[in-house]
Amino acid sequence: MNQDYIIPNNWSIIEEGFNTDRVKSSESLFSIGNGAMGQRANFEEYYSGPTFQGSYIAGVYYPDKTKVGWWKKGYPEYFAKVLNAPNWIGINVQVNGENLDLFTCKVDNFKRELNMQEGWLSRTFTATLKNNVVVTVKTKRFLSLTLDEVGAINYTITPVNVDATITYSPYLDAGITNEDTNWDDKFWEITSINSKDNKAFIEAHTLKTEFNTCTFMESECFLNDKKTDITPKIEKLENKITYNYTADVDAKSSFTIHKFAGYTVDRNHPKDKLISAATKALEKATSTGFNALLEAQKNAWATIWETSDITINGDVKAQQGIRFNIFQLNQTYLGTDAQLNIGPKGFTGEKYGGSTYWDTEAYCLPFYMATKDQNVGRNLLAYRYNHLEKAIENAEKLDFSNGAALYPMVTMNGEECHNEWEITFEEIHRNGAIAFAIYNYYRYTGDYSYIPEKGLEVLIGIARFWHQRATFSTKQNKYVILGVTGPNEYENNINNNWYTNYMAQWCINYTVETIANIKENYASDYDRIMSKVNLNSDEIKKWKDVADNMYFPFSEEHNVFLQQDGFLDKELTPASSLKNSQRPINQKWSWDRILRSPYIKQADTLQGFYLFEDNFTIEEIERHFDFYEPFTVHESSLSPCVHSILAAKLDRMDQAYSFYLRTSRLDLDDYNKEVEEGLHITSMAGTWMSIIEGFGGMRVRNNTLSFSPKIPKEWDGYSFKVNFRNHTIKVSVTQNKNTFELLKGEELTLMVNGKSITINQNNLITA
Amino acid sequence: MNQDYIIPNNWSIIEEGFNTDRVKSSESLFSIGNGAMGQRANFEEYYSGPTFQGSYIAGVYYPDKTKVGWWKKGYPEYFAKVLNAPNWIGINVQVNGENLDLFTCKVDNFKRELNMQEGWLSRTFTATLKNNVVVTVKTKRFLSLTLDEVGAINYTITPVNVDATITYSPYLDAGITNEDTNWDDKFWEITSINSKDNKAFIEAHTLKTEFNTCTFMESECFLNDKKTDITPKIEKLENKITYNYTADVDAKSSFTIHKFAGYTVDRNHPKDKLISAATKALEKATSTGFNALLEAQKNAWATIWETSDITINGDVKAQQGIRFNIFQLNQTYLGTDAQLNIGPKGFTGEKYGGSTYWDTEAYCLPFYMATKDQNVGRNLLAYRYNHLEKAIENAEKLDFSNGAALYPMVTMNGEECHNEWEITFEEIHRNGAIAFAIYNYYRYTGDYSYIPEKGLEVLIGIARFWHQRATFSTKQNKYVILGVTGPNEYENNINNNWYTNYMAQWCINYTVETIANIKENYASDYDRIMSKVNLNSDEIKKWKDVADNMYFPFSEEHNVFLQQDGFLDKELTPASSLKNSQRPINQKWSWDRILRSPYIKQADTLQGFYLFEDNFTIEEIERHFDFYEPFTVHESSLSPCVHSILAAKLDRMDQAYSFYLRTSRLDLDDYNKEVEEGLHITSMAGTWMSIIEGFGGMRVRNNTLSFSPKIPKEWDGYSFKVNFRNHTIKVSVTQNKNTFELLKGEELTLMVNGKSITINQNNLITA
Repeated sequence: MNQDYIIPNNWSIIEEGFNTDRVKSSESLFSIGNGAMGQRANFEEYYSGPTFQGSYIAGVYYPDKTKVGWWKKGYPEYFAKVLNAPNWIGINVQVNGENLDLFTCKVDNFKRELNMQEGWLSRTFTATLKNNVVVTVKTKRFLSLTLDEVGAINYTITPVNVDATITYSPYLDAGITNEDTNWDDKFWEITSINSKDNKAFIEAHTLKTEFNTCTFMESECFLNDKKTDITPKIEKLENKITYNYTADVDAKSSFTIHKFAGYTVDRNHPKDKLISAATKALEKATSTGFNALLEAQKNAWATIWETSDITINGDVKAQQGIRFNIFQLNQTYLGTDAQLNIGPKGFTGEKYGGSTYWDTEAYCLPFYMATKDQNVGRNLLAYRYNHLEKAIENAEKLDFSNGAALYPMVTMNGEECHNEWEITFEEIHRNGAIAFAIYNYYRYTGDYSYIPEKGLEVLIGIARFWHQRATFSTKQNKYVILGVTGPNEYENNINNNWYTNYMAQWCINYTVETIANIKENYASDYDRIMSKVNLNSDEIKKWKDVADNMYFPFSEEHNVFLQQDGFLDKELTPASSLKNSQRPINQKWSWDRILRSPYIKQADTLQGFYLFEDNFTIEEIERHFDFYEPFTVHESSLSPCVHSILAAKLDRMDQAYSFYLRTSRLDLDDYNKEVEEGLHITSMAGTWMSIIEGFGGMRVRNNTLSFSPKIPKEWDGYSFKVNFRNHTIKVSVTQNKNTFELLKGEELTLMVNGKSITINQNNLITA
Repeated sequence: MNQDYIIPNNWSIIEEGFNTDRVKSSESLFSIGNGAMGQRANFEEYYSGPTFQGSYIAGVYYPDKTKVGWWKKGYPEYFAKVLNAPNWIGINVQVNGENLDLFTCKVDNFKRELNMQEGWLSRTFTATLKNNVVVTVKTKRFLSLTLDEVGAINYTITPVNVDATITYSPYLDAGITNEDTNWDDKFWEITSINSKDNKAFIEAHTLKTEFNTCTFMESECFLNDKKTDITPKIEKLENKITYNYTADVDAKSSFTIHKFAGYTVDRNHPKDKLISAATKALEKATSTGFNALLEAQKNAWATIWETSDITINGDVKAQQGIRFNIFQLNQTYLGTDAQLNIGPKGFTGEKYGGSTYWDTEAYCLPFYMATKDQNVGRNLLAYRYNHLEKAIENAEKLDFSNGAALYPMVTMNGEECHNEWEITFEEIHRNGAIAFAIYNYYRYTGDYSYIPEKGLEVLIGIARFWHQRATFSTKQNKYVILGVTGPNEYENNINNNWYTNYMAQWCINYTVETIANIKENYASDYDRIMSKVNLNSDEIKKWKDVADNMYFPFSEEHNVFLQQDGFLDKELTPASSLKNSQRPINQKWSWDRILRSPYIKQADTLQGFYLFEDNFTIEEIERHFDFYEPFTVHESSLSPCVHSILAAKLDRMDQAYSFYLRTSRLDLDDYNKEVEEGLHITSMAGTWMSIIEGFGGMRVRNNTLSFSPKIPKEWDGYSFKVNFRNHTIKVSVTQNKNTFELLKGEELTLMVNGKSITINQNNLITA
């Protein structure tokens, strides 16, 4: 744990007291988003201290020219950058001509709150300016879920000790830059700056990608809560427009501004109608008014929580942690737009660029399937289906052919962005996660229709890739997969990564089974697909030959599968022998030292045992857990959750709980000393899995939902809800009993600890 | 072969006819240098067509900020760039007000010659300008070996059809840029521009490295070979100074300019005396005069050829090839300055930056030892001794300690420049070459004094590195070396590269033996060194444990050592099965495909068999050659020579000859389609080795020089000379007989084909 200033609270993230060193961390932690846009918790008013400004629009990116030391054939030309978009939150405040600036004035009673239950961010504080005017300030801001192009700010200032002349200067500023840029390119170009009455608009488009946007605002002022018409003084600069509203405010009177603002984007509107769409959005917002819009916000969040909340009793920090994770996931992605995806930093920072990693399929999909309508999961799958052609092109760049598909490591539009050969070209297990997600979607939702409609084509492209990527080793008399990087990125260019080989085998087998099923049960789909992809039984036989004769490195001595060939040649000293001063090793050690060490960045072999647990005995799982866990340093945010789930399965609840804490408060407590850069959004879904699949033991087997609840000794109880095939089930677990409740849907049979129970909306079953 | 426009000639490189497409290739091939500076064969007069301008000063470089995609701990901050230096060759020519520009005028009878025997470059041509004036032009240029800060140009123009007003505009231009720059930084800054009488000076310094230089010139004009005093019109621009000499020249009369110019550098003079040093250099040059300076040049080159020439009879192209290699090596490095080294492109281009690779020790040292005074070899060794401290720092950056030294992959001043983890951190076999060179120097020269004086400290640093870099594998019950890149860079991050492991073992053993010898025979040196490096017998025991228990991958089935662990898991299809359209694979294949293929970029296991041939039986060498050669694609210029030597040893003369041709005319015939970028200087020493060690079979065993001459069937005969311990020996080989002649030194016993012969200056021995 690197920080602990966040006040424990069941529903809110709260910071008390103002400390300039924490500003960037809090900017990340108090970020807000509504799926369509999001922003760091930057201050509205001018701030001269260290800050990381960020406002982001979903799906708007810039293809930044790649930076590499030594070019290798096959590298992508660009790395898609998440873009800092024009700033619309800005409201500079002048008090008797002096800028209100928290970095330079005296700040008392500072409190910041991110209310996760209702979806808003607030600040209250008292500031003593250099001119000795003392003011109290209250702000509240939210990004509307109901009008998702609009955000609203309520900013109220009250001079405490004297009458004061106060100017609010709400502005739009398109003169913004990215921190993450390879060549200091300009990303945005302004098309027009317009103002009409109280409304202002900046049209700007991204260079190269040509996303057209309109950033807009409209403000209303209130004196002692009474609307007042102040004629603004309008200033236009090259890339900024400011409205200045000045009022003489008596001591103890309040001066309030409501600013409505946001973005319209040509992803949703015709390019030449962005201003009129903005005008309409503003009209809706202003006619609704700040308070009614906030009410709607509370209701919308209540609906989200209705299906996704997890309660934990007796452990406020754990409760706060899990809600923070669920809240941020919902701020990032709501599943309504199949063109969007879940960036690893969501709308909280620029790092990692791109929006889509294998995190989506391996970690996020289960969360969205269980807490939202099944269309959301389907949209996530369709995202990859829509990129199939690009995945085939990507494979062709690496000399594959005949429709083999390699999905990118990082992408915005289906094209690969990443540019390290050992990742871009070799971390090919990602293809497996994309195939597994198709299986997992069907397993969970029971909706097979996706597979003949879209999924099978993706599976075929992936199976073709694995078939071509494997090579035959005469020595082993088996197929091998050489030169890969597994999920554990602390090994590069290794041979026969067990997880990758297992995934490859599974993908081919699942594809072959699926083809047979489609042939039998969806004859017309079968014909359409086979002729489209030009597949025949000879080719399928060749795939099967690879799957049936796949090589897996195994140690007789340890009776475990080896993470890769040669793993046992390492000096196998456990991570516990590492001094604290040496960790994290990715900051302390040179890369070659990391590579030759046995240390595992994130679950690799164990990731396979997690995904395919039914293919192994509990003893096998235990043996592999005992073998690999001691070498695992969890320097990826995606690691502790998998370990927590496996530990719970193995009845090692202390270990499971400790891994759970690490994953759930990763950002709140800043375990990795990097929260300033943004939050770890995708791993938050792993936290959710730690409770649902780990402690709750939720699985779907043979179309039946099953549970085997366990509870950490530190907790009094916990409960969660899941959507499952038009049912909403609530599971409550205490130290003494487990209860199952059906909140929505027809009678349903569950398996609990291996026994069948039936629930309906009239009863609460204890099992 | 990619081009064949170079006219075969025993002593000259000749081009006839003007073709703008060949300009950049010829700029490389006709490059001139004198060890202190060098330049591409750019035209003196203005040329508006595609050209690659290059003039280089030995030891003057810029630390260009590193460019990497993803930073890894341990990466160097900069990559030293070879710098294009201020241009002093420029002489613009105006004929009746029109610029003479070969790109735009009609060119006839163009001939360019690089005379390697005498060390000069010339051009003759007839040009018809757009204004219909026809002129003939003769130029001659050389970089003086006797005054190595000075170059001289003789430029003569003769109007053919009409009287003409001709202006010579010799200039100095410091407004030059590099083609190879990471961030388009400015590399040079001008300090002053001065002129005095006919002399001009531009003082400029490199940014960051602060090398101070003065570029200077002085010109003299002649009408019909008679000196004429023309008052020049002087133009000064921000970074350029031009003298304009105008004369009215009758038809068929000649107008000549002699330009003397060059650089003084604060490596050799006090920074504030650069202009006065330049003035002195110019005074020497002008008082000597162009013709006498050229005579001195011829004599100086005759002296070089006296000890280094190789003759080949009956094969002009082979003769031209070998002389071109020897000539370029001497243009690049003369061994007089221990601060300098042999850049892979010499003074012919910017590529690869840096100046020093393991090429120096592995390829160039034998050439310089055999063709020059032994001090030259000693200087090359001292270069690394002087960098020992930096090599220790470099190892510390990679977490090694206790004086372990890792020499850089690429360097200018001892600091690592390279920045790909798989090379920078893992291509550690380079350390072995540096230790081997110490052994090799003693073996050849018999000068042991270098070892107690300097060499042993280097050996100890290197032995310490290998000891720490090896790890113990419980499974193998041996020491292993994990995560390396061998000489074959088409394998990255492999385990137990045989060559690397063998080198590591050899380095430790040699160091331990050497310590014992120094202890016994150089007691005071021993004490001084041991206390300096703080070494005790316990540590040495630990080193020995590693060397004695080193693991070597071996295949029982093939009865060969394996290039690395897992090599047999590859699909072992020979390179001969590759289609031509697929080669070179480094341009046609994605990197991951290259890595999982069996193809070998350059001799790797065979490099070890070449260096340590006496440790293996001829059957072992043959078996390994037969196993690895078929997979070798020779996409490094350093590969064919080693194969040629081994093939000759195995009596496979056809193969040896074909590898020889590939190495000796690599640039002249542009095998790798890249000669425009500059020449492959260091591999030229490999060409020399192909004849001396390959065909001539020269070895040194037990302080005795031995030969086992063979001759390709394509040749009538060949001869070469070597310096050996104050003797100069000439070896002549024909299809019928081998003769041995002593040109210098006392009576000497040689071994020829296993038999002892004695030569002295009075006899010519046939053996």
